[in-house]
Amino acid sequence: MKALVLEKAGQLTLRDIYIEEHLGPDDVRIKVHTVGICGSDVHYYRHGAIGPFVVKHPMVLGHEASGTVVEVGKGVKHLKVGDRVCMEPGIPDPNSRATRLGMYNLDPDVRFWATPPVHGCLRETLVHPGMLVFKLPENVGFDEGALTEPLAVGVHAVRKAQIKPGDVALVIGTGTIGMVTAMAAAAGGCSNVIVADIVQEKLDLASSLGMISINVGREDLNEMVSDATDGWGADVIFEASGSAAGVSGVFEPLCPGGRVVFIGMPTRPVPVDIVAAQVKEARIEAIFRYAHAYSRALLLMESGKVNLKPLVTDRYRFEDSIKAFQYAANPRPSSVKTVIEL
Amino acid sequence: MKALVLEKAGQLTLRDIYIEEHLGPDDVRIKVHTVGICGSDVHYYRHGAIGPFVVKHPMVLGHEASGTVVEVGKGVKHLKVGDRVCMEPGIPDPNSRATRLGMYNLDPDVRFWATPPVHGCLRETLVHPGMLVFKLPENVGFDEGALTEPLAVGVHAVRKAQIKPGDVALVIGTGTIGMVTAMAAAAGGCSNVIVADIVQEKLDLASSLGMISINVGREDLNEMVSDATDGWGADVIFEASGSAAGVSGVFEPLCPGGRVVFIGMPTRPVPVDIVAAQVKEARIEAIFRYAHAYSRALLLMESGKVNLKPLVTDRYRFEDSIKAFQYAANPRPSSVKTVIEL
Amino acid sequence: MKALVLEKAGQLTLRDIYIEEHLGPDDVRIKVHTVGICGSDVHYYRHGAIGPFVVKHPMVLGHEASGTVVEVGKGVKHLKVGDRVCMEPGIPDPNSRATRLGMYNLDPDVRFWATPPVHGCLRETLVHPGMLVFKLPENVGFDEGALTEPLAVGVHAVRKAQIKPGDVALVIGTGTIGMVTAMAAAAGGCSNVIVADIVQEKLDLASSLGMISINVGREDLNEMVSDATDGWGADVIFEASGSAAGVSGVFEPLCPGGRVVFIGMPTRPVPVDIVAAQVKEARIEAIFRYAHAYSRALLLMESGKVNLKPLVTDRYRFEDSIKAFQYAANPRPSSVKTVIEL
Amino acid sequence: MKALVLEKAGQLTLRDIYIEEHLGPDDVRIKVHTVGICGSDVHYYRHGAIGPFVVKHPMVLGHEASGTVVEVGKGVKHLKVGDRVCMEPGIPDPNSRATRLGMYNLDPDVRFWATPPVHGCLRETLVHPGMLVFKLPENVGFDEGALTEPLAVGVHAVRKAQIKPGDVALVIGTGTIGMVTAMAAAAGGCSNVIVADIVQEKLDLASSLGMISINVGREDLNEMVSDATDGWGADVIFEASGSAAGVSGVFEPLCPGGRVVFIGMPTRPVPVDIVAAQVKEARIEAIFRYAHAYSRALLLMESGKVNLKPLVTDRYRFEDSIKAFQYAANPRPSSVKTVIEL
Repeated sequence: MKALVLEKAGQLTLRDIYIEEHLGPDDVRIKVHTVGICGSDVHYYRHGAIGPFVVKHPMVLGHEASGTVVEVGKGVKHLKVGDRVCMEPGIPDPNSRATRLGMYNLDPDVRFWATPPVHGCLRETLVHPGMLVFKLPENVGFDEGALTEPLAVGVHAVRKAQIKPGDVALVIGTGTIGMVTAMAAAAGGCSNVIVADIVQEKLDLASSLGMISINVGREDLNEMVSDATDGWGADVIFEASGSAAGVSGVFEPLCPGGRVVFIGMPTRPVPVDIVAAQVKEARIEAIFRYAHAYSRALLLMESGKVNLKPLVTDRYRFEDSIKAFQYAANPRPSSVKTVIEL
Repeated sequence: MKALVLEKAGQLTLRDIYIEEHLGPDDVRIKVHTVGICGSDVHYYRHGAIGPFVVKHPMVLGHEASGTVVEVGKGVKHLKVGDRVCMEPGIPDPNSRATRLGMYNLDPDVRFWATPPVHGCLRETLVHPGMLVFKLPENVGFDEGALTEPLAVGVHAVRKAQIKPGDVALVIGTGTIGMVTAMAAAAGGCSNVIVADIVQEKLDLASSLGMISINVGREDLNEMVSDATDGWGADVIFEASGSAAGVSGVFEPLCPGGRVVFIGMPTRPVPVDIVAAQVKEARIEAIFRYAHAYSRALLLMESGKVNLKPLVTDRYRFEDSIKAFQYAANPRPSSVKTVIEL
Repeated sequence: MKALVLEKAGQLTLRDIYIEEHLGPDDVRIKVHTVGICGSDVHYYRHGAIGPFVVKHPMVLGHEASGTVVEVGKGVKHLKVGDRVCMEPGIPDPNSRATRLGMYNLDPDVRFWATPPVHGCLRETLVHPGMLVFKLPENVGFDEGALTEPLAVGVHAVRKAQIKPGDVALVIGTGTIGMVTAMAAAAGGCSNVIVADIVQEKLDLASSLGMISINVGREDLNEMVSDATDGWGADVIFEASGSAAGVSGVFEPLCPGGRVVFIGMPTRPVPVDIVAAQVKEARIEAIFRYAHAYSRALLLMESGKVNLKPLVTDRYRFEDSIKAFQYAANPRPSSVKTVIEL
Repeated sequence: MKALVLEKAGQLTLRDIYIEEHLGPDDVRIKVHTVGICGSDVHYYRHGAIGPFVVKHPMVLGHEASGTVVEVGKGVKHLKVGDRVCMEPGIPDPNSRATRLGMYNLDPDVRFWATPPVHGCLRETLVHPGMLVFKLPENVGFDEGALTEPLAVGVHAVRKAQIKPGDVALVIGTGTIGMVTAMAAAAGGCSNVIVADIVQEKLDLASSLGMISINVGREDLNEMVSDATDGWGADVIFEASGSAAGVSGVFEPLCPGGRVVFIGMPTRPVPVDIVAAQVKEARIEAIFRYAHAYSRALLLMESGKVNLKPLVTDRYRFEDSIKAFQYAANPRPSSVKTVIEL
């Protein structure tokens, strides 16, 4: 089987690889169709590690995938050969304490695609537990199927935020995660979603999707949010930039009793003004990936409330995977998501 | 000042009336423009009472109103003469325990328009506390302004339901309240809203507004909800019919861990199968009017997420108010909301 | 192995029985020490059925048990031979949707001791999944170990009630479940717990445990709760009687915005005044058994915040099990819990 | 009227002062009996300012007070002359948006005793809105009455933490606020409360009150919390030290899905490891004073669940007020709360 293998930092090979995979009774085998390139894939490609996770052996990249079912275990009832599907990339221990409490994303033993030493999904086929494989609705294509993974992050963030109908949300950062979070917030009950970044091309895309865009390189964020909310502040703020500036300034445009969701992951500790959070009694949710979010993400796409198509800005064939990564490491400003088609 | 006065059960007069109203520093005077007729108005008209509230003296009807500001108290900063506005019809005691806790709708001393002995708003002008008067956004007309009142009920119900993004909702009953609740649920984060009733004309309207309609006179509600949710059940059920059948059967189409919101008000105790609620661990919210919902309702209309225009099915001039009530007491099946224009 | 077998309604035998039980790697084998008799055991004994659950074949009774570990599967790390333990009686499917969401008590496929056709624990030994076996703290005896099961119901009810510190709770009914709920409410943050019943002997016990007792046969419940709360009403009401009167009257002594937890299971639908719930915007939680409550119950006993010893009012030896059931079917008024020691 | 006046930083005078106070219909006049010295009082005494709040004119200190009602406005129904009472020190605008939403502590226009330019309560009498004056239960003395103010902070923190019965709490810091928070957590549903500090005398007091004490100067906090929770971590952590170390390390001993409450107010921004919060999906509540907490605090004292007497370690007469402040600025290690009796 052919796969895109990260041999070591900076060195990608598209080559044959043997991965032993047994199809158990609760598993399905999937022919991979489309894989999105995530920032973490690019980070492993460039640096060979993310924090404590170090690539010590050749590892297949990719964790955002859609495909077609080619074989079904006997115990799997909700899928059949030929179904177009997307897959959750993390396999938790069903008996861990966190999993049993419903928070399987916090299980320390979760095995997650393309997090060393676990192989990712940029390969021709893979075997996966049926429970983590979701049939795509008819109106959801392979592109959006692959992007269900980042959308699940946005849906999880919005769920944690406990949106009340008519809330005004502010999303800081317009990377893929910022974009899907803004979309999930709009679909999830907000009346208005304000998006802040310094890349005008991305802000233009956000505007075309119905968001209110603020270029914080030229405009005063706090003043504009205040104006947009009669001086009250945003009800919910999603920090999706992971930047020190984004995190440190997050309480300023917030309303009294507002909520902040930390999605972006700063690479080091960031100075936080605790008193600024206290005088507004901010409730802060720190989130990590998602749990029980895929079926919700798919329902929102099926009903037309979220449409991920505009986020796919760049496309490569499997044989050009290495070029795709070279591009994704240094993309055009207007680029949101690069996908690879197998 | 001319007003539509309920002299006693069954007897309406459009006549001059004197209501002493002093414009305090925190008040505004409003020229009334549009008033919606609510089921409670019709009930007072027909029966002269609702439960313990008995019309003992002539009373002006109406509590769903929009209008134009004609005079502003010195302490009111957010409004000026000429502003198009809508008004919350209930004035709570700001110092009651319920009000201070944020639940002013539960203040037993609230003075609510057209709830005896308080006069309603079907009159040329009225004075109201500025705090309960809301400026209409540019894209919101007087019709929708008047209908902000029922929409606030829907918004409050959805807020209490604590929608998670992608939830599937079922709304039982397609009267005005059922319709606005369905709209608020769709705008408030649900992926799909299923609406159930026996009046096909109303269901057709709901379908045209994007809802999934079920005619429970001909179709099996539980089966259809089960099919629409892969056998899991609806995440949230809004009981907006107030009928015994609606209330008694409400736990059947519910998912495990689902939520039920009782909006409709049955006229007498209804048999409830507590065990049916227990085996699903239903969380049930009983709601009463709304609190802090007007600004949210207006934001949802301003952003285009809720459009109440299709709900205004019948219109009368002020001089034909009595005809309007005669009609509203016995409307066409397709009628949702009758409004009176002053 | 000897066991107390319900042959059919009304006919108990203490006899040898063969139950095939294989000790898997994640299981432990337990020598049963103490078993509490629950109302449901007595109901099966008298009627041979509870609702849809019918005893069609001889079935061992009992589901409230403590014992000693005598054999440990290879995968079980938290237990060793000789440990004194208590056991959750319901074994859910770890992969059901409800279980994965953290609500394993709502899994329709749960296998629960002494719910036909599953054998209960009134037998010499049993094999159980290690995950559902909990080590008893040093200060917790076998009696309290067996009663961890009903306490878990109370802990679950209190958790669902979302107690705020200083809440005043009312518990309706002083059977075992009412008593443990009152104890859990007191330990769980309430300032005062009021207990209502008509059996003075039980109310005397509640008083001796620090509760405020009201004999509703002679005293006016609503008036007394009103007096005890400056006219505001109880913050939380736990309905633990399962009686029609308890359920129907539950909203009267409630405060605005209060919570009601339905624990008791009425045998048929009960008339409920929905409007009475609405004018107070009651939040109602219907609960079923418990999930993730055992470790909490044990921590509360270990720390001395809950002491179940006073609830064990009657004790029988295993050889007198049939007498124990005859007694439990018709106990003294002061009887709370009858236990059988093996 | 005599009062303890802060003339400027470092200069206190006990002298006559005239404060114009009119007794309105909803007010009561109180003869002050006992006043606790708070860290903020000492801070104003030493530095003349806290952040943006600068003492520009002579100001009476003190905001933790109990006393006796000596005059009652006509509209006040719940109090009479001679009642022993305690008082909330902050008077919010009843019509502010925050107040109406139930969060009056976040009203930016709140007038709070001994926050410039508002005079505090270290004076012979004062007039206060009846709504903010609470009758002391019989078993609550003037000392505990004065300390209701800090206890309200602890009760508010515990309420925000949404304790589940049996939670294990960790409180960082054993100043007055740490101590009352630990007490409120124990009364509010926690099975065990662990208290961490470096002052052994305070830890000894905490131990004598039933807490588990950890001296972080000599012991490893994370290891000990891990041991006490079978490796899971604390369910709730209250940061009451306001120190950079306390804030920065707060996610380490936390369990997955745990909650952190920031009560202590660091004097400057503190480096926070956002990723450490994310991998546990911490929910963080930043709190500011309290709202609707006094009546809860008094109920917990009335029922005997919280006893503040052991916290009063030092006592001065009014004529020795200046000595009291000199002491409080440099107290014995075992000192928790210094009170002044008028």
